[in-house]
Amino acid sequence: MTRQQRVSLDTALREHPPATPESIEEIRSGFAAFMTSMAVPGGVHREATTLGGRPALSVRAHRDEHSGTILYFHGGSFVFGSPETAISLTANLVVRTGVPAVSLDYRLAPENPFPAAIEDCLAAYQELLERGTDPAAIVLAGDSAGGGLAVTTCLAARAAGLPMPAGIVAFSPGLDATRTGGSMRSKEGIDPFFTKDGLDGTGALYLAGQDPRQELLSPAIVGDLAGLPPMLLQAGTNELLLDDATRFADRARAAEVDVILDVVAGVPHVFQAYAGTLGEADDALDRAALFVGQRLRNR
Amino acid sequence: MTRQQRVSLDTALREHPPATPESIEEIRSGFAAFMTSMAVPGGVHREATTLGGRPALSVRAHRDEHSGTILYFHGGSFVFGSPETAISLTANLVVRTGVPAVSLDYRLAPENPFPAAIEDCLAAYQELLERGTDPAAIVLAGDSAGGGLAVTTCLAARAAGLPMPAGIVAFSPGLDATRTGGSMRSKEGIDPFFTKDGLDGTGALYLAGQDPRQELLSPAIVGDLAGLPPMLLQAGTNELLLDDATRFADRARAAEVDVILDVVAGVPHVFQAYAGTLGEADDALDRAALFVGQRLRNR
Repeated sequence: MTRQQRVSLDTALREHPPATPESIEEIRSGFAAFMTSMAVPGGVHREATTLGGRPALSVRAHRDEHSGTILYFHGGSFVFGSPETAISLTANLVVRTGVPAVSLDYRLAPENPFPAAIEDCLAAYQELLERGTDPAAIVLAGDSAGGGLAVTTCLAARAAGLPMPAGIVAFSPGLDATRTGGSMRSKEGIDPFFTKDGLDGTGALYLAGQDPRQELLSPAIVGDLAGLPPMLLQAGTNELLLDDATRFADRARAAEVDVILDVVAGVPHVFQAYAGTLGEADDALDRAALFVGQRLRNR
Repeated sequence: MTRQQRVSLDTALREHPPATPESIEEIRSGFAAFMTSMAVPGGVHREATTLGGRPALSVRAHRDEHSGTILYFHGGSFVFGSPETAISLTANLVVRTGVPAVSLDYRLAPENPFPAAIEDCLAAYQELLERGTDPAAIVLAGDSAGGGLAVTTCLAARAAGLPMPAGIVAFSPGLDATRTGGSMRSKEGIDPFFTKDGLDGTGALYLAGQDPRQELLSPAIVGDLAGLPPMLLQAGTNELLLDDATRFADRARAAEVDVILDVVAGVPHVFQAYAGTLGEADDALDRAALFVGQRLRNR
Protein backbone atom coordinates (compact mmCIF):
# COMPACT_ATOMS: atom_id res chain seq x y z
CA MET A 1 0.00 0.00 0.00
CA THR A 2 1.38 3.38 -0.94
CA ARG A 3 1.49 6.30 1.40
CA GLN A 4 -1.20 7.95 -0.71
CA GLN A 5 -3.50 4.95 -0.33
CA ARG A 6 -2.88 4.85 3.40
CA VAL A 7 -3.72 8.52 3.78
CA SER A 8 -6.89 7.93 1.77
CA LEU A 9 -7.88 5.11 4.09
CA ASP A 10 -7.17 7.20 7.16
CA THR A 11 -9.24 10.01 5.71
CA ALA A 12 -12.06 7.64 4.86
CA LEU A 13 -12.05 6.21 8.38
CA ARG A 14 -11.89 9.62 10.00
CA GLU A 15 -14.34 11.60 7.93
CA HIS A 16 -16.71 9.13 6.43
CA PRO A 17 -17.81 6.51 8.90
CA PRO A 18 -19.33 3.74 6.84
CA ALA A 19 -23.01 4.19 6.26
CA THR A 20 -23.86 2.69 2.89
CA PRO A 21 -23.13 -0.79 1.55
CA GLU A 22 -20.79 0.81 -1.00
CA SER A 23 -18.83 2.81 1.55
CA ILE A 24 -18.57 -0.23 3.81
CA GLU A 25 -17.13 -2.29 0.99
CA GLU A 26 -14.71 0.52 0.20
CA ILE A 27 -13.50 0.63 3.79
CA ARG A 28 -13.26 -3.15 3.92
CA SER A 29 -11.08 -3.33 0.84
CA GLY A 30 -8.96 -0.36 1.91
CA PHE A 31 -8.40 -1.90 5.34
CA ALA A 32 -7.51 -5.22 3.76
CA ALA A 33 -4.99 -3.54 1.46
CA PHE A 34 -3.46 -1.67 4.40
CA MET A 35 -3.25 -4.60 6.78
CA THR A 36 -2.04 -7.14 4.27
CA SER A 37 0.81 -4.77 3.44
CA MET A 38 2.31 -5.65 6.84
CA ALA A 39 5.27 -8.03 6.83
CA VAL A 40 4.36 -11.66 7.45
CA PRO A 41 7.19 -13.71 8.93
CA GLY A 42 8.43 -16.64 6.94
CA GLY A 43 8.06 -20.22 8.06
CA VAL A 44 4.29 -20.33 8.47
CA HIS A 45 1.75 -22.45 6.69
CA ARG A 46 -1.80 -21.19 6.21
CA GLU A 47 -4.77 -23.37 5.38
CA ALA A 48 -8.47 -22.68 5.13
CA THR A 49 -10.58 -24.52 7.67
CA THR A 50 -13.83 -24.12 9.58
CA LEU A 51 -14.54 -23.78 13.27
CA GLY A 52 -17.86 -23.38 15.03
CA GLY A 53 -19.61 -23.26 11.69
CA ARG A 54 -17.55 -20.34 10.38
CA PRO A 55 -14.65 -20.13 7.95
CA ALA A 56 -11.30 -19.91 9.66
CA LEU A 57 -7.62 -19.83 8.84
CA SER A 58 -5.25 -22.37 10.32
CA VAL A 59 -1.78 -20.84 10.82
CA ARG A 60 1.03 -23.19 11.79
CA ALA A 61 4.81 -22.87 12.09
CA HIS A 62 6.85 -25.19 9.92
CA ARG A 63 8.98 -26.27 12.85
CA ASP A 64 9.38 -26.14 16.64
CA GLU A 65 5.71 -26.72 17.05
CA HIS A 66 4.39 -26.93 20.58
CA SER A 67 1.03 -28.23 21.67
CA GLY A 68 -1.86 -25.91 22.37
CA THR A 69 -4.01 -23.60 20.30
CA ILE A 70 -4.13 -19.85 19.90
CA LEU A 71 -7.69 -18.96 18.96
CA TYR A 72 -7.26 -15.61 17.21
CA PHE A 73 -9.87 -12.90 16.58
CA HIS A 74 -8.95 -10.21 14.06
CA GLY A 75 -9.63 -6.49 14.41
CA GLY A 76 -11.70 -4.14 12.27
CA SER A 77 -14.28 -2.43 14.48
CA PHE A 78 -16.66 -5.40 14.07
CA VAL A 79 -17.34 -4.11 10.55
CA PHE A 80 -14.28 -5.03 8.49
CA GLY A 81 -11.21 -7.25 8.59
CA SER A 82 -10.72 -10.98 8.27
CA PRO A 83 -8.15 -13.62 9.27
CA GLU A 84 -6.12 -12.44 6.28
CA THR A 85 -5.97 -8.83 7.48
CA ALA A 86 -4.58 -10.04 10.84
CA ILE A 87 -2.19 -12.56 9.32
CA SER A 88 0.92 -10.59 10.27
CA LEU A 89 -0.09 -10.51 13.94
CA THR A 90 -1.27 -14.12 14.02
CA ALA A 91 1.78 -15.44 12.19
CA ASN A 92 4.12 -13.46 14.43
CA LEU A 93 2.55 -15.08 17.50
CA VAL A 94 2.72 -18.52 15.90
CA VAL A 95 6.36 -18.20 14.85
CA ARG A 96 7.43 -16.76 18.19
CA THR A 97 5.59 -19.37 20.29
CA GLY A 98 5.68 -22.40 18.04
CA VAL A 99 2.02 -22.82 18.96
CA PRO A 100 -0.49 -23.18 16.09
CA ALA A 101 -3.34 -20.72 15.70
CA VAL A 102 -6.83 -20.79 14.29
CA SER A 103 -8.02 -17.35 13.21
CA LEU A 104 -11.78 -17.03 13.00
CA ASP A 105 -13.75 -15.30 10.26
CA TYR A 106 -16.60 -14.24 12.55
CA ARG A 107 -19.68 -12.46 11.18
CA LEU A 108 -19.47 -8.70 10.75
CA ALA A 109 -21.80 -5.73 11.20
CA PRO A 110 -23.86 -4.11 9.84
CA GLU A 111 -25.14 -7.31 8.22
CA ASN A 112 -24.73 -9.12 11.56
CA PRO A 113 -24.69 -6.77 14.55
CA PHE A 114 -23.96 -7.58 18.21
CA PRO A 115 -23.95 -10.28 19.53
CA ALA A 116 -23.31 -12.20 16.28
CA ALA A 117 -19.52 -11.91 16.49
CA ILE A 118 -19.46 -13.14 20.09
CA GLU A 119 -21.80 -16.03 19.22
CA ASP A 120 -19.36 -17.09 16.51
CA CYS A 121 -16.32 -16.77 18.76
CA LEU A 122 -18.05 -18.73 21.51
CA ALA A 123 -19.09 -21.45 19.04
CA ALA A 124 -15.48 -21.71 17.86
CA TYR A 125 -14.19 -22.05 21.42
CA GLN A 126 -16.90 -24.57 22.20
CA GLU A 127 -16.01 -26.68 19.17
CA LEU A 128 -12.37 -26.76 20.28
CA LEU A 129 -13.54 -28.09 23.64
CA GLU A 130 -15.92 -30.60 22.02
CA ARG A 131 -13.02 -31.92 19.94
CA GLY A 132 -11.35 -32.76 23.23
CA THR A 133 -8.95 -29.82 23.48
CA ASP A 134 -8.00 -29.14 27.08
CA PRO A 135 -9.16 -25.58 27.88
CA ALA A 136 -5.81 -25.15 29.64
CA ALA A 137 -4.22 -25.65 26.21
CA ILE A 138 -6.09 -22.73 24.61
CA VAL A 139 -5.17 -19.04 24.64
CA LEU A 140 -7.59 -16.52 23.18
CA ALA A 141 -5.89 -13.66 21.39
CA GLY A 142 -6.96 -10.75 19.26
CA ASP A 143 -6.38 -7.18 18.22
CA SER A 144 -8.63 -4.14 18.56
CA ALA A 145 -12.24 -5.35 18.27
CA GLY A 146 -10.77 -8.86 18.30
CA GLY A 147 -8.98 -8.13 21.56
CA GLY A 148 -12.36 -7.19 22.96
CA LEU A 149 -13.77 -10.46 21.61
CA ALA A 150 -11.03 -12.44 23.38
CA VAL A 151 -12.38 -10.99 26.62
CA THR A 152 -16.10 -11.10 25.89
CA THR A 153 -15.88 -14.65 24.57
CA CYS A 154 -14.57 -15.64 27.99
CA LEU A 155 -17.47 -13.83 29.65
CA ALA A 156 -19.92 -15.59 27.31
CA ALA A 157 -18.20 -18.92 27.98
CA ARG A 158 -18.46 -18.37 31.72
CA ALA A 159 -22.18 -17.62 31.35
CA ALA A 160 -22.55 -20.83 29.32
CA GLY A 161 -20.88 -22.84 32.07
CA LEU A 162 -17.79 -23.57 30.01
CA PRO A 163 -14.31 -23.70 31.54
CA MET A 164 -11.98 -20.78 31.02
CA PRO A 165 -9.06 -20.94 28.58
CA ALA A 166 -5.50 -20.64 29.86
CA GLY A 167 -5.15 -16.97 29.07
CA ILE A 168 -6.01 -13.91 27.02
CA VAL A 169 -3.69 -11.79 24.88
CA ALA A 170 -5.28 -8.55 23.71
CA PHE A 171 -3.55 -5.99 21.48
CA SER A 172 -5.19 -2.55 21.87
CA PRO A 173 -8.52 -4.10 22.80
CA GLY A 174 -11.82 -2.29 22.39
CA LEU A 175 -13.60 -2.84 25.71
CA ASP A 176 -16.01 0.06 26.05
CA ALA A 177 -18.78 0.56 23.51
CA THR A 178 -19.96 3.59 25.49
CA ARG A 179 -16.68 5.33 24.48
CA THR A 180 -16.37 7.12 27.81
CA GLY A 181 -12.63 6.71 28.43
CA GLY A 182 -10.67 9.89 29.04
CA SER A 183 -8.34 8.97 26.17
CA MET A 184 -11.29 9.30 23.75
CA ARG A 185 -10.75 13.04 24.07
CA SER A 186 -7.19 13.41 25.34
CA LYS A 187 -5.74 11.35 22.48
CA GLU A 188 -7.88 12.85 19.72
CA GLY A 189 -5.51 14.31 17.15
CA ILE A 190 -2.69 12.16 18.58
CA ASP A 191 -4.22 8.86 17.46
CA PRO A 192 -3.29 8.59 13.77
CA PHE A 193 -6.06 6.15 12.92
CA PHE A 194 -9.20 6.95 14.85
CA THR A 195 -11.45 9.83 15.71
CA LYS A 196 -14.25 9.47 18.23
CA ASP A 197 -16.73 10.25 15.45
CA GLY A 198 -15.27 7.47 13.37
CA LEU A 199 -15.52 5.00 16.22
CA ASP A 200 -19.06 6.12 16.93
CA GLY A 201 -19.88 5.46 13.28
CA THR A 202 -18.67 1.87 13.19
CA GLY A 203 -19.85 1.35 16.76
CA ALA A 204 -23.40 2.26 15.78
CA LEU A 205 -23.34 -0.39 13.06
CA TYR A 206 -22.33 -3.05 15.60
CA LEU A 207 -24.75 -1.88 18.28
CA ALA A 208 -27.70 -1.53 15.92
CA GLY A 209 -29.59 0.40 18.55
CA GLN A 210 -28.74 -1.91 21.46
CA ASP A 211 -27.66 -0.56 24.85
CA PRO A 212 -23.83 -0.36 24.96
CA ARG A 213 -23.83 -0.54 28.77
CA GLN A 214 -23.62 -4.32 29.10
CA GLU A 215 -20.72 -6.56 29.96
CA LEU A 216 -20.42 -8.18 26.54
CA LEU A 217 -20.01 -4.73 24.98
CA SER A 218 -18.30 -2.65 27.67
CA PRO A 219 -16.49 -4.85 30.17
CA ALA A 220 -14.14 -1.94 30.91
CA ILE A 221 -16.99 -0.30 32.79
CA VAL A 222 -19.71 -2.87 33.66
CA GLY A 223 -20.07 -6.51 34.61
CA ASP A 224 -18.35 -8.99 36.86
CA LEU A 225 -14.85 -9.98 35.78
CA ALA A 226 -14.21 -12.58 38.48
CA GLY A 227 -12.88 -15.86 37.20
CA LEU A 228 -11.35 -14.53 33.99
CA PRO A 229 -8.05 -16.18 33.11
CA PRO A 230 -4.66 -14.43 33.34
CA MET A 231 -4.37 -11.79 30.68
CA LEU A 232 -1.83 -9.65 28.88
CA LEU A 233 -3.15 -6.33 27.60
CA GLN A 234 -0.91 -4.27 25.32
CA ALA A 235 -1.68 -0.76 24.13
CA GLY A 236 0.07 2.38 22.92
CA THR A 237 -0.20 5.82 24.47
CA ASN A 238 -1.08 7.29 21.06
CA GLU A 239 -4.53 5.81 20.84
CA LEU A 240 -8.10 6.69 21.70
CA LEU A 241 -8.60 3.16 23.05
CA LEU A 242 -5.82 3.42 25.67
CA ASP A 243 -8.24 3.87 28.55
CA ASP A 244 -10.29 0.87 27.42
CA ALA A 245 -7.26 -1.20 28.43
CA THR A 246 -6.34 0.74 31.58
CA ARG A 247 -9.87 0.82 33.00
CA PHE A 248 -10.48 -2.83 32.18
CA ALA A 249 -7.17 -3.72 33.83
CA ASP A 250 -8.18 -1.82 36.97
CA ARG A 251 -11.49 -3.71 37.16
CA ALA A 252 -9.95 -7.10 36.41
CA ARG A 253 -7.22 -6.59 39.02
CA ALA A 254 -9.88 -5.68 41.59
CA ALA A 255 -11.64 -8.95 40.70
CA GLU A 256 -8.44 -10.87 41.54
CA VAL A 257 -7.55 -11.60 37.93
CA ASP A 258 -3.86 -11.75 36.90
CA VAL A 259 -3.36 -8.74 34.62
CA ILE A 260 -0.26 -7.56 32.81
CA LEU A 261 -1.00 -4.08 31.48
CA ASP A 262 1.79 -3.41 29.01
CA VAL A 263 1.64 0.14 27.67
CA VAL A 264 4.23 1.44 25.23
CA ALA A 265 4.67 5.19 24.91
CA GLY A 266 4.51 6.98 21.59
CA VAL A 267 3.12 4.16 19.50
CA PRO A 268 -0.31 3.85 17.87
CA HIS A 269 -3.19 1.41 17.89
CA VAL A 270 -2.08 -2.19 17.29
CA PHE A 271 1.55 -1.13 16.85
CA GLN A 272 2.50 -4.84 16.94
CA ALA A 273 1.48 -4.93 13.28
CA TYR A 274 4.72 -3.08 12.50
CA ALA A 275 6.88 -6.06 13.52
CA GLY A 276 10.06 -6.19 11.52
CA THR A 277 10.10 -2.40 11.19
CA LEU A 278 9.41 -1.04 14.66
CA GLY A 279 11.54 -2.41 17.50
CA GLU A 280 8.77 -1.81 20.01
CA ALA A 281 6.51 -4.08 17.96
CA ASP A 282 8.94 -6.99 17.96
CA ASP A 283 9.66 -6.57 21.67
CA ALA A 284 5.96 -6.48 22.50
CA LEU A 285 5.32 -9.62 20.44
CA ASP A 286 8.19 -11.37 22.23
CA ARG A 287 6.61 -10.47 25.56
CA ALA A 288 3.27 -11.78 24.30
CA ALA A 289 4.93 -15.00 23.14
CA LEU A 290 6.56 -15.54 26.54
CA PHE A 291 3.18 -15.01 28.19
CA VAL A 292 1.47 -17.51 25.84
CA GLY A 293 4.21 -20.04 26.51
CA GLN A 294 3.90 -19.57 30.28
CA ARG A 295 0.15 -19.98 30.18
CA LEU A 296 0.27 -23.15 28.08
CA ARG A 297 3.19 -24.67 29.98
CA ASN A 298 1.43 -24.34 33.32
CA ARG A 299 -1.26 -26.91 32.63
CA MET B 1 14.36 -20.49 59.24
CA THR B 2 11.69 -22.54 60.96
CA ARG B 3 8.00 -21.81 60.69
CA GLN B 4 8.11 -20.75 64.32
CA GLN B 5 10.87 -18.24 63.62
CA ARG B 6 9.01 -16.90 60.63
CA VAL B 7 5.83 -16.42 62.65
CA SER B 8 7.88 -14.63 65.29
CA LEU B 9 9.32 -12.30 62.68
CA ASP B 10 5.87 -11.59 61.25
CA THR B 11 4.58 -10.88 64.74
CA ALA B 12 7.53 -8.62 65.44
CA LEU B 13 6.98 -6.68 62.24
CA ARG B 14 3.27 -6.38 62.83
CA GLU B 15 3.09 -5.57 66.48
CA HIS B 16 6.37 -4.04 67.42
CA PRO B 17 7.58 -1.53 64.87
CA PRO B 18 11.24 -1.00 65.64
CA ALA B 19 11.83 1.76 68.11
CA THR B 20 14.91 0.90 70.09
CA PRO B 21 18.40 -0.02 68.88
CA GLU B 22 17.87 -3.49 70.37
CA SER B 23 14.52 -4.09 68.64
CA ILE B 24 15.93 -2.81 65.33
CA GLU B 25 18.82 -5.26 65.54
CA GLU B 26 16.37 -8.03 66.39
CA ILE B 27 14.28 -7.23 63.31
CA ARG B 28 17.38 -6.96 61.14
CA SER B 29 18.65 -10.37 62.14
CA GLY B 30 15.19 -11.95 61.89
CA PHE B 31 14.70 -10.49 58.41
CA ALA B 32 18.14 -11.70 57.37
CA ALA B 33 17.38 -15.21 58.61
CA PHE B 34 14.06 -15.21 56.77
CA MET B 35 15.35 -13.84 53.48
CA THR B 36 18.51 -15.89 53.34
CA SER B 37 16.35 -19.01 53.76
CA MET B 38 15.13 -18.44 50.16
CA ALA B 39 16.61 -20.69 47.50
CA VAL B 40 19.57 -19.22 45.64
CA PRO B 41 20.04 -20.64 42.15
CA GLY B 42 23.30 -22.37 41.42
CA GLY B 43 25.83 -21.09 38.95
CA VAL B 44 26.43 -17.67 40.46
CA HIS B 45 29.59 -16.19 41.88
CA ARG B 46 29.43 -13.55 44.63
CA GLU B 47 32.22 -11.21 45.54
CA ALA B 48 32.46 -8.27 47.89
CA THR B 49 33.17 -4.96 46.18
CA THR B 50 32.50 -1.26 46.67
CA LEU B 51 30.53 1.19 44.58
CA GLY B 52 29.94 4.87 45.18
CA GLY B 53 31.79 4.63 48.45
CA ARG B 54 29.58 1.91 49.86
CA PRO B 55 30.07 -1.85 50.25
CA ALA B 56 28.39 -3.84 47.52
CA LEU B 57 28.06 -7.41 46.32
CA SER B 58 29.04 -8.38 42.80
CA VAL B 59 26.85 -11.23 41.53
CA ARG B 60 27.83 -12.88 38.26
CA ALA B 61 26.72 -15.96 36.36
CA HIS B 62 29.38 -18.57 35.70
CA ARG B 63 28.45 -18.74 32.03
CA ASP B 64 26.39 -17.16 29.26
CA GLU B 65 27.38 -13.75 30.47
CA HIS B 66 26.06 -10.79 28.51
CA SER B 67 27.25 -7.24 28.75
CA GLY B 68 25.47 -4.69 30.86
CA THR B 69 24.94 -4.18 34.57
CA ILE B 70 21.97 -4.71 36.83
CA LEU B 71 22.34 -2.24 39.70
CA TYR B 72 20.28 -3.88 42.44
CA PHE B 73 18.76 -2.28 45.56
CA HIS B 74 17.56 -4.67 48.29
CA GLY B 75 14.34 -4.32 50.28
CA GLY B 76 13.78 -3.91 54.00
CA SER B 77 11.73 -0.77 54.59
CA PHE B 78 14.91 1.38 54.51
CA VAL B 79 15.67 0.01 57.99
CA PHE B 80 16.90 -3.55 57.47
CA GLY B 81 18.15 -5.87 54.75
CA SER B 82 21.40 -6.05 52.80
CA PRO B 83 22.67 -7.42 49.48
CA GLU B 84 22.75 -10.81 51.20
CA THR B 85 19.07 -10.71 52.13
CA ALA B 86 18.18 -10.04 48.49
CA ILE B 87 20.63 -12.57 47.09
CA SER B 88 17.90 -14.95 45.90
CA LEU B 89 16.22 -12.20 43.84
CA THR B 90 19.46 -10.77 42.52
CA ALA B 91 20.91 -14.15 41.63
CA ASN B 92 17.69 -15.22 39.93
CA LEU B 93 17.85 -12.13 37.71
CA VAL B 94 21.53 -12.72 36.97
CA VAL B 95 21.08 -16.39 36.09
CA ARG B 96 18.02 -15.75 33.95
CA THR B 97 19.55 -12.82 32.05
CA GLY B 98 23.22 -13.71 32.01
CA VAL B 99 23.81 -10.07 32.96
CA PRO B 100 26.00 -9.37 36.01
CA ALA B 101 24.63 -7.42 38.95
CA VAL B 102 26.03 -5.17 41.62
CA SER B 103 23.87 -5.08 44.73
CA LEU B 104 24.41 -2.03 46.89
CA ASP B 105 24.65 -1.96 50.67
CA TYR B 106 23.16 1.52 51.02
CA ARG B 107 22.90 3.26 54.39
CA LEU B 108 19.87 2.43 56.55
CA ALA B 109 17.56 4.32 58.90
CA PRO B 110 17.25 5.20 61.69
CA GLU B 111 21.00 5.80 61.80
CA ASN B 112 20.82 7.37 58.34
CA PRO B 113 17.35 8.60 57.42
CA PHE B 114 16.09 9.96 54.08
CA PRO B 115 17.74 10.92 51.76
CA ALA B 116 20.86 8.93 52.74
CA ALA B 117 19.77 5.77 50.88
CA ILE B 118 19.05 7.71 47.69
CA GLU B 119 22.36 9.56 47.95
CA ASP B 120 24.15 6.21 48.11
CA CYS B 121 22.20 4.75 45.21
CA LEU B 122 22.83 7.85 43.11
CA ALA B 123 26.56 7.77 43.96
CA ALA B 124 26.68 4.13 42.89
CA TYR B 125 24.96 4.89 39.58
CA GLN B 126 27.23 7.89 39.05
CA GLU B 127 30.36 5.80 39.66
CA LEU B 128 29.20 3.28 37.06
CA LEU B 129 28.89 6.15 34.59
CA GLU B 130 32.25 7.61 35.59
CA ARG B 131 33.86 4.22 34.96
CA GLY B 132 32.63 4.59 31.41
CA THR B 133 29.58 2.34 31.55
CA ASP B 134 27.04 3.31 28.90
CA PRO B 135 23.83 4.33 30.74
CA ALA B 136 21.98 2.32 28.08
CA ALA B 137 23.80 -0.74 29.46
CA ILE B 138 22.46 -0.28 33.00
CA VAL B 139 19.15 -1.46 34.43
CA LEU B 140 18.17 -0.43 37.95
CA ALA B 141 16.30 -3.12 39.85
CA GLY B 142 15.08 -3.64 43.36
CA ASP B 143 12.46 -5.06 45.65
CA SER B 144 10.12 -3.30 48.09
CA ALA B 145 11.97 -0.25 49.43
CA GLY B 146 14.66 -1.08 46.88
CA GLY B 147 12.10 -1.02 44.08
CA GLY B 148 11.24 2.47 45.23
CA LEU B 149 14.94 3.34 45.21
CA ALA B 150 15.25 2.14 41.60
CA VAL B 151 12.66 4.80 40.73
CA THR B 152 13.82 7.59 43.02
CA THR B 153 17.46 7.12 42.02
CA CYS B 154 16.36 7.89 38.45
CA LEU B 155 14.54 11.00 39.63
CA ALA B 156 17.64 12.08 41.57
CA ALA B 157 19.83 11.33 38.54
CA ARG B 158 17.55 13.41 36.33
CA ALA B 159 17.80 16.29 38.81
CA ALA B 160 21.60 15.92 38.75
CA GLY B 161 21.63 16.15 34.97
CA LEU B 162 22.70 12.53 34.52
CA PRO B 163 21.41 10.38 31.68
CA MET B 164 18.75 7.79 32.41
CA PRO B 165 19.55 4.09 32.61
CA ALA B 166 17.99 1.67 30.11
CA GLY B 167 15.19 0.56 32.37
CA ILE B 168 13.77 -0.11 35.81
CA VAL B 169 12.59 -3.41 37.28
CA ALA B 170 10.71 -3.03 40.55
CA PHE B 171 9.30 -5.92 42.58
CA SER B 172 6.50 -4.70 44.89
CA PRO B 173 7.98 -1.21 45.07
CA GLY B 174 7.22 1.17 47.89
CA LEU B 175 6.40 4.45 46.17
CA ASP B 176 4.24 6.37 48.59
CA ALA B 177 5.59 7.36 52.01
CA THR B 178 2.25 9.04 52.76
CA ARG B 179 0.67 5.54 52.77
CA THR B 180 -2.56 6.79 51.18
CA GLY B 181 -3.23 3.97 48.70
CA GLY B 182 -6.60 2.25 48.96
CA SER B 183 -4.82 -1.09 49.35
CA MET B 184 -3.35 0.16 52.65
CA ARG B 185 -6.79 -0.55 54.11
CA SER B 186 -8.39 -2.97 51.65
CA LYS B 187 -5.52 -5.45 51.90
CA GLU B 188 -5.03 -5.22 55.64
CA GLY B 189 -5.44 -8.72 57.07
CA ILE B 190 -4.85 -10.14 53.57
CA ASP B 191 -1.20 -9.05 53.40
CA PRO B 192 0.66 -11.71 55.39
CA PHE B 193 3.68 -9.51 56.09
CA PHE B 194 2.62 -5.94 56.70
CA THR B 195 0.19 -3.89 58.67
CA LYS B 196 -0.24 -0.18 58.09
CA ASP B 197 0.92 0.43 61.66
CA GLY B 198 4.05 -1.59 60.99
CA LEU B 199 4.79 0.36 57.83
CA ASP B 200 4.15 3.62 59.63
CA GLY B 201 6.66 2.54 62.27
CA THR B 202 9.54 1.85 59.89
CA GLY B 203 8.45 4.73 57.67
CA ALA B 204 8.81 7.16 60.57
CA LEU B 205 12.40 6.01 61.09
CA TYR B 206 13.22 6.73 57.44
CA LEU B 207 11.35 10.04 57.35
CA ALA B 208 12.79 11.30 60.65
CA GLY B 209 10.20 14.04 60.71
CA GLN B 210 10.58 15.08 57.06
CA ASP B 211 7.55 15.74 54.83
CA PRO B 212 6.61 12.51 53.01
CA ARG B 213 4.89 14.49 50.24
CA GLN B 214 7.89 14.90 47.95
CA GLU B 215 8.82 13.12 44.77
CA LEU B 216 11.83 11.28 46.19
CA LEU B 217 9.59 9.76 48.85
CA SER B 218 6.18 9.44 47.21
CA PRO B 219 6.48 9.43 43.41
CA ALA B 220 3.19 7.49 43.25
CA ILE B 221 1.41 10.70 44.17
CA VAL B 222 3.67 13.74 43.58
CA GLY B 223 6.37 14.95 41.22
CA ASP B 224 7.05 14.90 37.51
CA LEU B 225 7.75 11.48 36.05
CA ALA B 226 8.52 12.61 32.48
CA GLY B 227 11.69 11.19 31.05
CA LEU B 228 11.85 8.09 33.24
CA PRO B 229 13.07 5.01 31.37
CA PRO B 230 10.85 2.06 30.45
CA MET B 231 9.86 0.14 33.54
CA LEU B 232 8.45 -3.17 34.65
CA LEU B 233 6.51 -3.07 37.93
CA GLN B 234 5.45 -6.38 39.47
CA ALA B 235 3.20 -6.72 42.50
CA GLY B 236 0.80 -9.19 44.10
CA THR B 237 -2.84 -8.54 44.92
CA ASN B 238 -2.24 -9.69 48.50
CA GLU B 239 -0.22 -6.71 49.59
CA LEU B 240 -0.72 -3.34 51.19
CA LEU B 241 1.70 -1.82 48.67
CA LEU B 242 -0.34 -2.87 45.61
CA ASP B 243 -1.68 0.62 45.01
CA ASP B 244 1.80 2.12 45.25
CA ALA B 245 2.49 0.29 42.00
CA THR B 246 -0.88 0.91 40.33
CA ARG B 247 -0.98 4.64 41.09
CA PHE B 248 2.64 5.13 40.10
CA ALA B 249 1.96 3.26 36.85
CA ASP B 250 -1.01 5.53 36.13
CA ARG B 251 1.13 8.64 36.64
CA ALA B 252 4.09 7.32 34.67
CA ARG B 253 1.86 6.29 31.75
CA ALA B 254 0.31 9.77 31.74
CA ALA B 255 3.87 11.17 31.55
CA GLU B 256 4.51 9.10 28.40
CA VAL B 257 6.72 6.56 30.11
CA ASP B 258 6.67 2.91 28.95
CA VAL B 259 5.13 0.97 31.84
CA ILE B 260 4.45 -2.71 32.20
CA LEU B 261 2.28 -3.16 35.28
CA ASP B 262 2.39 -6.88 35.99
CA VAL B 263 0.06 -7.84 38.83
CA VAL B 264 -0.32 -11.43 39.94
CA ALA B 265 -3.43 -12.39 41.89
CA GLY B 266 -3.30 -14.16 45.23
CA VAL B 267 0.39 -13.72 45.93
CA PRO B 268 2.11 -11.62 48.60
CA HIS B 269 4.71 -8.88 48.74
CA VAL B 270 7.86 -9.75 46.76
CA PHE B 271 6.50 -13.16 45.83
CA GLN B 272 9.44 -13.52 43.39
CA ALA B 273 11.50 -14.52 46.43
CA TYR B 274 9.71 -17.89 46.33
CA ALA B 275 11.33 -18.88 43.03
CA GLY B 276 11.82 -22.59 42.79
CA THR B 277 8.76 -23.20 44.97
CA LEU B 278 6.02 -20.98 43.57
CA GLY B 279 5.39 -21.20 39.83
CA GLU B 280 4.16 -17.61 39.73
CA ALA B 281 7.54 -16.48 41.10
CA ASP B 282 9.55 -18.23 38.41
CA ASP B 283 7.23 -17.00 35.67
CA ALA B 284 7.43 -13.42 36.95
CA LEU B 285 11.23 -13.60 37.10
CA ASP B 286 11.31 -14.92 33.53
CA ARG B 287 9.19 -11.97 32.42
CA ALA B 288 11.55 -9.64 34.28
CA ALA B 289 14.55 -11.27 32.62
CA LEU B 290 13.03 -10.85 29.15
CA PHE B 291 12.40 -7.19 29.93
CA VAL B 292 15.99 -6.66 31.12
CA GLY B 293 17.31 -8.36 28.01
CA GLN B 294 15.12 -6.23 25.75
CA ARG B 295 16.21 -3.04 27.45
CA LEU B 296 19.92 -3.87 27.24
CA ARG B 297 19.73 -5.22 23.71
CA ASN B 298 18.11 -2.04 22.40
CA ARG B 299 21.11 0.18 22.86
